[in-house]
Amino acid sequence: MARIVNTVLADKVMSAEEAARFINPGDNVGMSGFTGSGYPKAVPTALANRMEAAHDAGEDFSIGLFTGASTSDELDGALAKAKGVHFRTPFNTDPDMRAAINNGDVDYLDAHLSHLAQQVWFGFYGNLNVAVVEVAAILPNGLLVPGASVGNNKTWLDLADKVILEVNEWLPNEIEGFHDIYYGTHIPPHRNPIQILDPAQRIGDPYLRVDESKVVAVVKTNSPDRDNKFNPVDEKSEAMANYLIDFLRSEVKNDRLPKNLLPLQSGIGNVANAVLAGLQESEFRNLTSFTEVVQDNLLSLLEEGTFTSVSATALSLTREKAQYFNDNVEKFKGRLLLRPQEMSNHPEIVRRLGVIGINGMVEADIYGNVNSTHITGTKIVNGIGGSGDFARNAFLNFFVSPSTAKDDAISSIVPFASHVDHTEHDTQVIVTEQGIADLRGLSPIKRARRIIDNCAHPNFRDRLTDYLDRAVAADPGGQHTPHILEEALSWHINLRENGKM
Amino acid sequence: MARIVNTVLADKVMSAEEAARFINPGDNVGMSGFTGSGYPKAVPTALANRMEAAHDAGEDFSIGLFTGASTSDELDGALAKAKGVHFRTPFNTDPDMRAAINNGDVDYLDAHLSHLAQQVWFGFYGNLNVAVVEVAAILPNGLLVPGASVGNNKTWLDLADKVILEVNEWLPNEIEGFHDIYYGTHIPPHRNPIQILDPAQRIGDPYLRVDESKVVAVVKTNSPDRDNKFNPVDEKSEAMANYLIDFLRSEVKNDRLPKNLLPLQSGIGNVANAVLAGLQESEFRNLTSFTEVVQDNLLSLLEEGTFTSVSATALSLTREKAQYFNDNVEKFKGRLLLRPQEMSNHPEIVRRLGVIGINGMVEADIYGNVNSTHITGTKIVNGIGGSGDFARNAFLNFFVSPSTAKDDAISSIVPFASHVDHTEHDTQVIVTEQGIADLRGLSPIKRARRIIDNCAHPNFRDRLTDYLDRAVAADPGGQHTPHILEEALSWHINLRENGKM
Repeated sequence: MARIVNTVLADKVMSAEEAARFINPGDNVGMSGFTGSGYPKAVPTALANRMEAAHDAGEDFSIGLFTGASTSDELDGALAKAKGVHFRTPFNTDPDMRAAINNGDVDYLDAHLSHLAQQVWFGFYGNLNVAVVEVAAILPNGLLVPGASVGNNKTWLDLADKVILEVNEWLPNEIEGFHDIYYGTHIPPHRNPIQILDPAQRIGDPYLRVDESKVVAVVKTNSPDRDNKFNPVDEKSEAMANYLIDFLRSEVKNDRLPKNLLPLQSGIGNVANAVLAGLQESEFRNLTSFTEVVQDNLLSLLEEGTFTSVSATALSLTREKAQYFNDNVEKFKGRLLLRPQEMSNHPEIVRRLGVIGINGMVEADIYGNVNSTHITGTKIVNGIGGSGDFARNAFLNFFVSPSTAKDDAISSIVPFASHVDHTEHDTQVIVTEQGIADLRGLSPIKRARRIIDNCAHPNFRDRLTDYLDRAVAADPGGQHTPHILEEALSWHINLRENGKM
Repeated sequence: MARIVNTVLADKVMSAEEAARFINPGDNVGMSGFTGSGYPKAVPTALANRMEAAHDAGEDFSIGLFTGASTSDELDGALAKAKGVHFRTPFNTDPDMRAAINNGDVDYLDAHLSHLAQQVWFGFYGNLNVAVVEVAAILPNGLLVPGASVGNNKTWLDLADKVILEVNEWLPNEIEGFHDIYYGTHIPPHRNPIQILDPAQRIGDPYLRVDESKVVAVVKTNSPDRDNKFNPVDEKSEAMANYLIDFLRSEVKNDRLPKNLLPLQSGIGNVANAVLAGLQESEFRNLTSFTEVVQDNLLSLLEEGTFTSVSATALSLTREKAQYFNDNVEKFKGRLLLRPQEMSNHPEIVRRLGVIGINGMVEADIYGNVNSTHITGTKIVNGIGGSGDFARNAFLNFFVSPSTAKDDAISSIVPFASHVDHTEHDTQVIVTEQGIADLRGLSPIKRARRIIDNCAHPNFRDRLTDYLDRAVAADPGGQHTPHILEEALSWHINLRENGKM
């Protein structure tokens, strides 16, 4: 079946190189892409080539780059290597882009994933010049069948002056019907309640809309997303998953959670995968997920029936699983909805549904302040992503990390967080392979004892207790959150100087 | 008119001393009270006396104390002085209670004001044994006319095993009709959208409900709330207010805000008062407020017409203004709604309405991380209150503070926040009497330059710039958020050691 059957837009088909000419130096460009899926495959590389040619000719050429979340080497990597980005938001995992940010070549704004779209609508980021969005097809009436991620595509298409569409024939025709694009959003004071009562509930259309007159180019591609590999479940992640699932079991037993829990959100990575693997082997059934990203395991558990429905904004699959999805797409229809990230992460919906949020972290301090983003307080890793959207508004939130990193050189439990992304007011449960610390209802000092005793690695536990004891002894009038300010960041200084804490 | 006309409850009338006997050592007690208004006037003192007698007899007697927010010397003060509280949440401003917390005598849990009620419902705080709630009247059908604050009263009345009501005849009969008590809340997965589209919209009843069989005592009082004085507007607060109002004016001019703005939330204090005074003198009209607390000025501006409607959870008035309100209550009916704090601060509603949040702070670091709660990272001041509920979900948020404190000994702009309550991902605009820093769309380094240049006091500006310059020079690979960890907290150490930064 032809993918570009709208006659107006069929006339706009051209090469990626030709399309990239519509992007000018200094433009703000909104591109599709969320956790390595649904990003444009051809135009970014063509644009990077154009930039390099311009730079070779002594001309400036860089853009402000807005996406859904992380993309791939073909997008963030290519543009970073071309030194073609002066501003980047809201999330990145590409190593070249990360290096460019940490070297000071790129201004990076690390934003809550539910915030960016609305703030672009509010006019806080200036004009959006161009949208570059991958879709699966253009229908005769001009409606767009979205691809493997939705991200901020609705907003980019609505707001950009010019639109470049990439139509990726690698995506199956049958992906039509998997999306829920809500066109009821407004700017205050004209907003209405978002009437989602259940993760599987559709409130919008399966299509993205675009003003045909803004479309300057349509580029055909036929290319899979990057191979979104994940680390296999190891002993530590299995231990963390077991603590977490036992905790959920105990909450059910104590009548604080329904038997089929509440909608689960889990971040990316092998702990998330271990939790899913653990749930599959557990007694839990009829689960639902209200989350950002669908990785291999969640798709398997949806197919196999442990989960009845999943709401997300992106698929993020291995090459093999993506092919499987393409070949078996009808198995998932009606049970998997991909929404704009404004909706998948919306505080209103997260709080209403009572999501159980499970997110990774770099470190937590003894009082439960969580650093999700920075190494030694200065270097960005990826970004906060949706962890703040979910953790703040969750029914129950978990922050998970191995208790150490780099062969036990680094403790993920520290006296004082070198950067705070989630505050003591928000953190509820911390999990490491050492154990689980339920912080609900506890004052800071009680939290500290529990985190140190239950979660810190034995190699660091005594030093943490010693720090806390001395902090308590040092300042009789500062017993709410005792600290020895002179030592508070010494573990991070040690790490920077000596490679270990 | 009689205030206790329900026959069942009229039989329960007794003295405060008798009522206090229903509270046992170790109980969790939910009391009314929000920003010094609507707290019980008689039972807490009687309870404190009971506790002191028990302590004199060598017996333990302390309770877990839950309120709406801050109360008064008659409640927090009396119980703290009696050493009768082992756990306190979610907010306190009483100096005796603060001292008890900072001395380690009281475990304090500093919680988002929109979070506590639901988390007690979720069972995260254990059983609530007793509710002590001030009301204005008990109607023949047993419905309760709420008083000058709503706070968490609905939740305490619903969940407590035993209920003690204080009926305060000082409140006018005509306060009936000012409240909007929403009984549509549920625990996930049974929650529905909250259908508020406008600050003035009523979605609930004017009455609190109580299961009569749980009411163990009714105590009559006739006593005003504490005199909620505020500092007069001074030169600095006027300067901050002018920067802020000019900023709003510029946003309107640039079509980023409607002419009558969006619903305003403002914290307590003289900056908030200066902003209101400035708005009165400005061209802005037909304003609305979706906020926690109504202080004198907001009530005046509502009467005078600058504001058309106000939603809050509490009045917090001077004695004089409270008397004026009592004498002129009909002037405000239909234009002022008092709701449970779960609703007044609800993320869903705050984001939908697009609230403009204005909150004070202790300090901000150069990257925009805001400390609202701690002195030198260890001593609690009051608590986060509703600032997180509003700032995170606001259309636009402002954090305001004089650039210095204690005769310029302390800078409110510091290299590194000694505690973080609002993260760099949330802070949008910082205001001091020196100027205003619009941080929207800026990377950390650009934020730092702007905060230092626009907001820091001249006495500290060069040192901050020097810190930033040296941090940038020190770590070529840590340019996202440059810091010199060895110096990051040195300003706070200086303050602790030498009384100045």
